[in-house]
Formats: sequence, C-alpha cells, structure tokens
Amino acid sequence: MDLATIIGIILSFGLVISSIVFNGSILIFISVPSLLIVVGGTIGATLVNYPLRSVLGVMGVIKHTFMSKVESPSQIIEQFMEYANRARREGILSLEPIIKDIEDLYLKKGLQLTVDGLEPQAIQEILEKEITYLEGRHETGAEILSTFGAYAPAMGMIGTVIGLILMLQTMDDPSTIGPSMAVALITTFYGAVFANLVFLPMAGKLKQRSKDEVVIKEMVMEGILAISKGENPRIIEEKLTSFLPPKDRRKET
Amino acid sequence: MDLATIIGIILSFGLVISSIVFNGSILIFISVPSLLIVVGGTIGATLVNYPLRSVLGVMGVIKHTFMSKVESPSQIIEQFMEYANRARREGILSLEPIIKDIEDLYLKKGLQLTVDGLEPQAIQEILEKEITYLEGRHETGAEILSTFGAYAPAMGMIGTVIGLILMLQTMDDPSTIGPSMAVALITTFYGAVFANLVFLPMAGKLKQRSKDEVVIKEMVMEGILAISKGENPRIIEEKLTSFLPPKDRRKET
Amino acid sequence: MDLATIIGIILSFGLVISSIVFNGSILIFISVPSLLIVVGGTIGATLVNYPLRSVLGVMGVIKHTFMSKVESPSQIIEQFMEYANRARREGILSLEPIIKDIEDLYLKKGLQLTVDGLEPQAIQEILEKEITYLEGRHETGAEILSTFGAYAPAMGMIGTVIGLILMLQTMDDPSTIGPSMAVALITTFYGAVFANLVFLPMAGKLKQRSKDEVVIKEMVMEGILAISKGENPRIIEEKLTSFLPPKDRRKET
Amino acid sequence: MDLATIIGIILSFGLVISSIVFNGSILIFISVPSLLIVVGGTIGATLVNYPLRSVLGVMGVIKHTFMSKVESPSQIIEQFMEYANRARREGILSLEPIIKDIEDLYLKKGLQLTVDGLEPQAIQEILEKEITYLEGRHETGAEILSTFGAYAPAMGMIGTVIGLILMLQTMDDPSTIGPSMAVALITTFYGAVFANLVFLPMAGKLKQRSKDEVVIKEMVMEGILAISKGENPRIIEEKLTSFLPPKDRRKET
Amino acid sequence: MDLATIIGIILSFGLVISSIVFNGSILIFISVPSLLIVVGGTIGATLVNYPLRSVLGVMGVIKHTFMSKVESPSQIIEQFMEYANRARREGILSLEPIIKDIEDLYLKKGLQLTVDGLEPQAIQEILEKEITYLEGRHETGAEILSTFGAYAPAMGMIGTVIGLILMLQTMDDPSTIGPSMAVALITTFYGAVFANLVFLPMAGKLKQRSKDEVVIKEMVMEGILAISKGENPRIIEEKLTSFLPPKDRRKET
Repeated sequence: MDLATIIGIILSFGLVISSIVFNGSILIFISVPSLLIVVGGTIGATLVNYPLRSVLGVMGVIKHTFMSKVESPSQIIEQFMEYANRARREGILSLEPIIKDIEDLYLKKGLQLTVDGLEPQAIQEILEKEITYLEGRHETGAEILSTFGAYAPAMGMIGTVIGLILMLQTMDDPSTIGPSMAVALITTFYGAVFANLVFLPMAGKLKQRSKDEVVIKEMVMEGILAISKGENPRIIEEKLTSFLPPKDRRKET
Repeated sequence: MDLATIIGIILSFGLVISSIVFNGSILIFISVPSLLIVVGGTIGATLVNYPLRSVLGVMGVIKHTFMSKVESPSQIIEQFMEYANRARREGILSLEPIIKDIEDLYLKKGLQLTVDGLEPQAIQEILEKEITYLEGRHETGAEILSTFGAYAPAMGMIGTVIGLILMLQTMDDPSTIGPSMAVALITTFYGAVFANLVFLPMAGKLKQRSKDEVVIKEMVMEGILAISKGENPRIIEEKLTSFLPPKDRRKET
Repeated sequence: MDLATIIGIILSFGLVISSIVFNGSILIFISVPSLLIVVGGTIGATLVNYPLRSVLGVMGVIKHTFMSKVESPSQIIEQFMEYANRARREGILSLEPIIKDIEDLYLKKGLQLTVDGLEPQAIQEILEKEITYLEGRHETGAEILSTFGAYAPAMGMIGTVIGLILMLQTMDDPSTIGPSMAVALITTFYGAVFANLVFLPMAGKLKQRSKDEVVIKEMVMEGILAISKGENPRIIEEKLTSFLPPKDRRKET
Repeated sequence: MDLATIIGIILSFGLVISSIVFNGSILIFISVPSLLIVVGGTIGATLVNYPLRSVLGVMGVIKHTFMSKVESPSQIIEQFMEYANRARREGILSLEPIIKDIEDLYLKKGLQLTVDGLEPQAIQEILEKEITYLEGRHETGAEILSTFGAYAPAMGMIGTVIGLILMLQTMDDPSTIGPSMAVALITTFYGAVFANLVFLPMAGKLKQRSKDEVVIKEMVMEGILAISKGENPRIIEEKLTSFLPPKDRRKET
Repeated sequence: MDLATIIGIILSFGLVISSIVFNGSILIFISVPSLLIVVGGTIGATLVNYPLRSVLGVMGVIKHTFMSKVESPSQIIEQFMEYANRARREGILSLEPIIKDIEDLYLKKGLQLTVDGLEPQAIQEILEKEITYLEGRHETGAEILSTFGAYAPAMGMIGTVIGLILMLQTMDDPSTIGPSMAVALITTFYGAVFANLVFLPMAGKLKQRSKDEVVIKEMVMEGILAISKGENPRIIEEKLTSFLPPKDRRKET
C-alpha cells in the first residue's frame, strides 16, 4: 500500500486520538448512532447521486490504486530495450513466447497486437481507448470520494441539529445540557474527521496516482508503437527516457 | 425506478428518522409551517429564477430519467445486427414493416429517415440535434435541482432567523427559550435534509443518467448511419462494441 | 410581466410573512434603519464596484427583460413566410412599405438593410454586433444583480455585528438582551431575504430570458439573411423551424 | 475621481456610521489596535503573497485608474478624423509638428512610429504589447485588491478569536463579559467593512475601468494603423464608430 | 530571501503577537498539543493527499524559490550581448571555454548544446521540456501549500470541537467553562493563523515567483536560440528587451 497514505493516516488519527486521550476518555467519542448517521447518511446520499455500480466499484478502484505498485519507469525502459533488441535481431515474431509470461495485461495486449501484425495506428487507437477508460474509472472514483467528503460534514451538521432540537425540547434539568450538547457535537466531529482526514485526502491521492499510472501507460504505449514500427533500440530508449523527470533521467544516462 | 436511488433514500432517511426515534419523539420534528417555508420558499425562489415552463417540466424530466429504463447496450447491438443483416439480404426497404413495432421514438425516427432514403449526413444532423435538445432538457433539469439544493438551506436559515427573532422579542419566561429555539432550528434541519439528502444528490444522478442516455443515443445513431451507408454487419458490430467499457466488451466477444 | 416571477415572489414572500404573522407581530420585523443599512449599503458597495451608468442602467434592463414579451417563435415563422412570399412574387423592394409598420427595431433595421440592397454578409455582421451588444447589456445586468445578492448578506452581517457590539457594550439590564439581539438579527434576516428571494433568483431569470431573447434574435437574423439571399420560402420555413425545440416543432408541421 | 465610487463610499459608510450614531456612541467602534491587526495583518499577508514591487505598485494603479479620465470615444474619433484628413492632404509627415503637443503617451508613441515610417504590422505588434502590459498591470492590481478582500475578514476573525480566548481565560467578573465580547467583535466588524465596502468593490471597479481603458487603447491603435495604411478618412470614421455601443453610436451619425 | 515575505511575516505576526501581549499573556496562546494537532494533522492529511516524495520535495521547492535570486533581466541581456558578439567575431566554438564558468545550469546546458552544434529546433525542444518540468514542480509545490492552507482551519475546527465535547461532558464546575472554552478555541486560532498568515500567502508567492522564473528561462532560451542561429547581436538585444515591461525597458535604451 502507498506508504504516505499509511503514515498520513496514522499521524493524523494518532494526533486526534492522543489529544482526546490526554484530556479525557476516548469512550466519550465513541458513538455508534453518530457513526451510523454520518457514514450511513453519506453513503445513502452518494447512492442517490451515483449509479449503484459506480459506488460499489469505488472500493475496487481504491484498492487497486492504493495497493497495486506503479511500475518503475526505469524498469520499463530496460524491459523495452530487451524487447526491441530481440525484435531487431530475431524478428518481431520472436516476442511471441515472451508474451505469455507478462503479467501486466495492458503491456500483454499491446505486444500481442504487435506480434499479430496490426498497423501501428490501429494499435495506438486501441491502447489509447484503454487509457481513456482507465482515466474515466479513476475520475469517477475520485469524484465519488469527493462527494463523500462533501456529504459527510453535511450529515454531521444534520446529526448535530437533531441533537440540539431534542436537547432544547426536553430541557428540564439544566445539568443535562452540557452532556447532551456534547453528544450532539459528536456527529459534527465525525463528519469533519471523515471528510478532512479520509475522504478528501483520498480523493486527492487517487487523482495523483491516476496521473502517474497514465504516464506509465503512455510510456508503455510509446514503446509498443516504436517496436511495431521497427525503430532502432537506441531511439526507443531516448523516446522513453523523455518521460522521466530530469532528476531521474540523469541516473539513466 | 433506479435502484440505487431507492436504496440511498431509504438508507439516509431511515438513519435520520431512527436517530430521532431512538432519542425522542418524531412528533417534535414534524412541523407543517417549517415544511411550507422551506419547500414553498425554495419553489418560490426557483420560480423567480427559471421560466414557469422549465420548473413545471422538471417533474417530467425527473420522472422520465428515474423511471425509464436505459436500454442495455448489448441488446441494442443484437438488434442492429438483425436490422443490418436484413437490410443486406433483402434491401433497406425491408425494414419498413419492422419500424411500426419499434417503441423507442428516437430509433423509430432514425430508421424511418433511413428507409425514406435521406442522405446519411442529413440523418446525422437531425439525430444529433435531437441529442442536443435532450442534453439541454436534462441539463436544465439538473440545474433546477441544484438551484433547489442551494435555496433550501437558505430558506431553512431564514426560517430559523425568524424563529430566533420572535423568541428573543418575547423572552418573558426563560423556560420557553429551549422549546422555541428547538422550533426555530427545525427549518434549518429541513433545509439541510432536503438539500443534502434529496435535491443535490438527485441533481447529481440526473447528470449521470443523462450521460448514460446520451451514450446510448449516440450508439443508436452510429448504428442507423452504418445501416444507411449499407455497411457490413460485422463492421457495424465492431463499431457499436467500441461504445462498451472494456469489462462489458469481453462478454460480447 | 413574467408570470413565474410574480407567482414565485408572491409564494415565497407570502410564506415568509405568514410564518411571521402566525407566530407574532409583523411589526417586529419592520425596521427602516435595518432596511436602509442592507439595501443602501448594498447599493453603495455596488456603486463602488460598477460604473454609475451600468448601475442606473440595471433598472432599465430589468424592466425591459421582465416586462417585454419575448415574441412567439411560431409567429415569427409565419411573419417571415409572408415576407419571403411577397419578396419572391413582387421583388424585394415590395417590402419597403411594410417596414414602417414594424415595431421591433431589430427586425425593422434588418429588413431596411435588406431592402437597401446590402450584401448578406454585411447585414450579418451588423445584426451579429447588435446581438453581441444585447448579450453584453444583459450580462452586465445579471452580474450587477448577482453582486447585489453577494453584498446584501454581507451588509446584513455587518448590521448584526453592529447591533451585537452595541448591545454587549451596554448590557446593564439582562432583560433587554433578548429584544436587542432580536433587533440585531433583523439585518441578517433582511440580507438573507433580499439575496435569496429577490436578487439571486432575478439574476438567474435575467440569464434565462437573455438566452431566449438571443435565440429569437438569431432566428430573425437567419430569416432576414435568407430573404436577402432570395431563398425559397419553403427552405426558409425549414431553417427557422429548426430553432424550435422538438416538442413545439411538431405543432408546426 | 470616479463619481460612482465617491457616491458609493459616502452612501455605504454614511449608513453604517449613522446606524451606529443613532443607537450608541461611535467611540465604541473606534479601536486603533483592531484597525492595526485587520489592516496591518491584511497588508502583511498580502506582502507574503505578492512581490513587494507589485504591492507598492497597487497604489499607483488605483490612483491612475480612479483619477485619470478615460477619454471620450467621440472625441477620439474627431481627433483621428482631423489627423487622417491632414495626412491625406499634406502627407503623413505633416503630423510631426502635432505629435509634440499630444499628452497621451500611447497615442504619441503610435503616431511617432507612423511618422517614422514603420510598417503597420510592426506598429501593431508594438502597440498590442503595450496593451498587454497595461492589462497585466491592471489585472495584478485587481488581484491584489481581491486578496486584501479575502485576508481582511480572516484577520477580523483571528482578532475576534484572540479577544474571545483572552476574555474566557480571565472570566472573573461576569459583568465584564459583555464589553469584552464587544471589543472582540470589533475586529470582525472591521474585517467585514473593509472587505465588503472597500476592497472587493474596488477590485470590481478596477476590472471595469480596465476593460474601458483597453477598448479606448484598441480604438486608438485601430486609428493609428488606418492612418499608417493611408486609409480614407470616411472609412476610418466608420471603423472607429463600430467601437461604440449602439446607443452612443446613434448620436455620432 | 524574498524581502516582502520577511516584512510581511514580521508585520502580520508582530501585530498578532502585540495584540495578545498588550491585552494578556502570550503564555495563554502557547499550547504544544494544539500546535501538534493543527500542524501534525495538516501534514497527515496532506500526506494522504499527495505522494510522499512530493510532500518532502515541497521544502526544497520553497527553499529554492524563496532563497535563490531571480537574475536581473538586464544582466542577462548584457551577458547575451557579450556571447553573441564573441560568437560573431570568433565563431561559436569560442564560447566553449566560457561555459565551464557558468553557474546557472539551464544556461550552461543550453550553450553546451549550441556549441555541440545541435539544430536550433532540437535545442528548443529540450529547453522547453525543462521549463515544463520546472513549472510542474512549482505548481505541485503551490498546490501542496494551498492544501496545507485548506486542511489547517479544518484541523483547527476539529481540535475545537474535541475541546468543546470534553468540556461539555465534564461540566461540573461552572467556573471552569471559560478557561476550557479558551483552550478549545486555541486550535481554531492556530488553524486560522497558519492558513492565512503562512500557507495561503506562501502558495500565492510561489505562483508569482514561478511566473518570474519562467519568464527569465524563456528569455535565456530565446537568447540561446538566437546565438545558435547566428543572429545579429543588435537583433538579439531587441528580442530580449521585448521581455521587459515598458518601464524597465526605457532604462535599457
């Protein structure tokens, strides 16, 4: 899983929890009904907002994005140098046996199309459409997480208003005002924590990871197209290296 | 009706209502005047904001969007394969008897124009204009729902300010402060609930459904144009399949 | 005047006023100083924000937009059919006597230019510039109303803060706190009501009406150009009909 | 100085001050520390946000924009008619003695370049670059004023929070709570007044004036180019008249 | 370091601190736990939002941007005049010994490529890509600072809600309410101060400095390309001068 995400969540939740523990009891802040109204209400509003399939799919997108390792660009360059050299020496059909062992479905598909002898332009169209769909899925995922982040504080506010109305209606004993208001405020707390420590930052990370993954896919596409055009391995290396930021590039050359 | 919408509304309203029932009486939260000022005021402000016809039309748009089933893309592909094969074998005029039984007005119109022998380009212009009008209607519908979602909390706030002013002016008996403030807060509660659990999510869903419906319409248009150009059924299938996301596409082939 | 605007204003103000009258006295909410600070302050800030001429002009734009009837597209089509037939039969100069009786200045100018024998392209340039200026005037009008809608709640808030500071400074008798706060809140109430029930919805309506008026003007321009090119009345009808939404179009044909 | 700005500031400040004077003493609202924290803090944050030179330059931009009269378009047309006629009759070099007496630097530079015999295209490039720099300076000026308008309420809020914390920490005597909170609220008042009555409206006016000035500069450029191309004075008049809005244009012709 | 930044920070922090010191003790506002929850929580949320590498890199970007002096455009012009004259007189290879002593890596790389005899178009592509990467790094830096500025007040609010809940739950002794609320408000204070006096203004400055640096880089690129094309030193001077704003330009000529 993405290291910064783990560090970030441990850091922010750790600080919030410590600040509670050092000043009182964590038990005051545990409230299943508040959790239900904030998380359940947020999911409910998001289900009205998006198709069922997209909301269910968001878990998959999150898991895929945070768990799957984005391949290292320099490894990809090495790999393509190998393919290109082999294709040059022994002909493009010599790549066929290698394809079986490739795990990355995108690279596999692209190489297969090359070996099958499709025109480079046709390969490009197919691989670009895949990237478009990938971007679309990630975008919807990030949008749904942002929507979670927008509805969560609203649900927290609704929960607090409910608590306030109930408290104000039955204000017999002044000594209960404090604790009742405390309970009412817990949904506001949950809404703010979920939105600002979980949903909104995760939507942001999803967008960042999506950008990275798309660059990798575009790099792979560029490599496949170069091989299918029978370009010189040296030129392929140069083309792929231009995808790296200057700092990383110096290491290559 | 759209399943996610039903689940979402039941879930969010269920949680809001349970959180009330378990802590007090639901009767405290039922207030016809509050409902009138929030819903009526929101409708009033929206009537000033949009033409009468568009506001009245929004119900139709909502009903149509949530109730009508978006056709399954794979069914459409099957249907067009049938039309294309028939047109190939028996000539384009052989589609004439089929047209009568088609329910979808858009498909019906497009096929009729094809059978009438219009130029593909003329057919495309007419069908694209229909899509533009459809998008326009959906967009206005989503905008009006968003406007509802913007005015509802404002009306809730206005209602609460009215309640607070009345309460503060006549603050003779301190014991009435609590219940009066509770009543004042109910409009805030209504405004927040209607905006965040109904209007804003519905505006979002309308946009999503509109996108889906437009893709279907574009697919149908592509199919009609291909038939009117007398294209090979195999190529038509390929063209239409490219409208499907990769996951669904694998099932086709 | 625009019907929806009247209904909307009566509805929303009616509900706000009834909710006051049923719970207390309307007199509590009438405060000339509060009205002055909210409305006067909003106008003052807007005068700093826009040139004097534009702010004074906004009344004209509002009056024109809400009072003038947008002509019915089907009437315009009929009218142009008549002009086109006449021009076809008796020559374009036969339109000269009709022009005097035309009330709509835009149509009048366009036809005069046609009778004067200008090139269609020159006519188009002149008529398009008029539309651009019309859009510009409407846009500035809508922007100024939106600016009113942004400054009104700010002025309401400033008025309430003034009231709170005065009340807190001179808090001798606790029994006066309630009424003083009530008075302080009235400017907030005014700001919210003017912004959400008047200024913002009116800015929205202005944008909608402007769109409608521009479509009509474009339709008239299209008709004038077609006549000046001596096009067939049947084709002119078809061209103008394509400006109508499909629902209205069916009635025509 | 711009009349609407003066009227607007007198109107809004007049109403705010009267509403204070009629209900209490203006002295309560005068607080040098509050003024310092709001205005000084706003300037401080803006200095971090923009280069020193731009922040210092904003005063010049404001002064120039509000003080300098935007020339009347009809006067400019008259002037150019004179230049064009003279250039036609006596040759372009006859403009040389006139140039010395021209005050407007932009017009002066443009005419000088024309007399010097530069190609129209070269003149256009130089004059367009000047307009771009002018727009850039105005834009930065308006942005800085908007930034003032964004930081002022934030500083007001920070000042109020400081006041509240100090008050709550030393809450020995309940009778001091009111006055202390009043003092705390004064920074909120200052922040809201400066943002909504001064900074934000002035940023808006700057944008409006910039638009007007750019139109005038473009008109002057058009005139200079026409003269440098030796165009007919009648055509020059027509070209320049098209910069006027229709209402003003009628007066010309 | 950037002078305006230092003045701005000293001014705004100075005013905030004085306003505390003159009215109470600064000690009340020092709270390590509050600092931890606001700063730590903000960093935590940002780590979830951005890749670890980007967040760590932001310090470098800030340091580089605030510390490094943007070169004076007039010095650059002088420098290029020298290079151009030398290249003209003694051939382009005569620049080789100079390159070693150039500190600016961008200029060094560009000149080296020129001496190496690359085509001007290839040099342009390489130098433009460097500018794109520079802009990208600065943009990410400014975005991360803006994200800090968005999460800081949210963390402040979360801290205050925690404090309020704890206070309300254990409201035994009314005399502790004041101080407890004061402590709760300190996180709000920290969040507002960090966001409005540090993070948001710094994000703004980063954007401004980035613009300046990019203009300088574009100027250097223009100069290098002109030398590689063997252009006349006089024309090179004119080309580079056009990058200066008119006010500075007058000094040159």
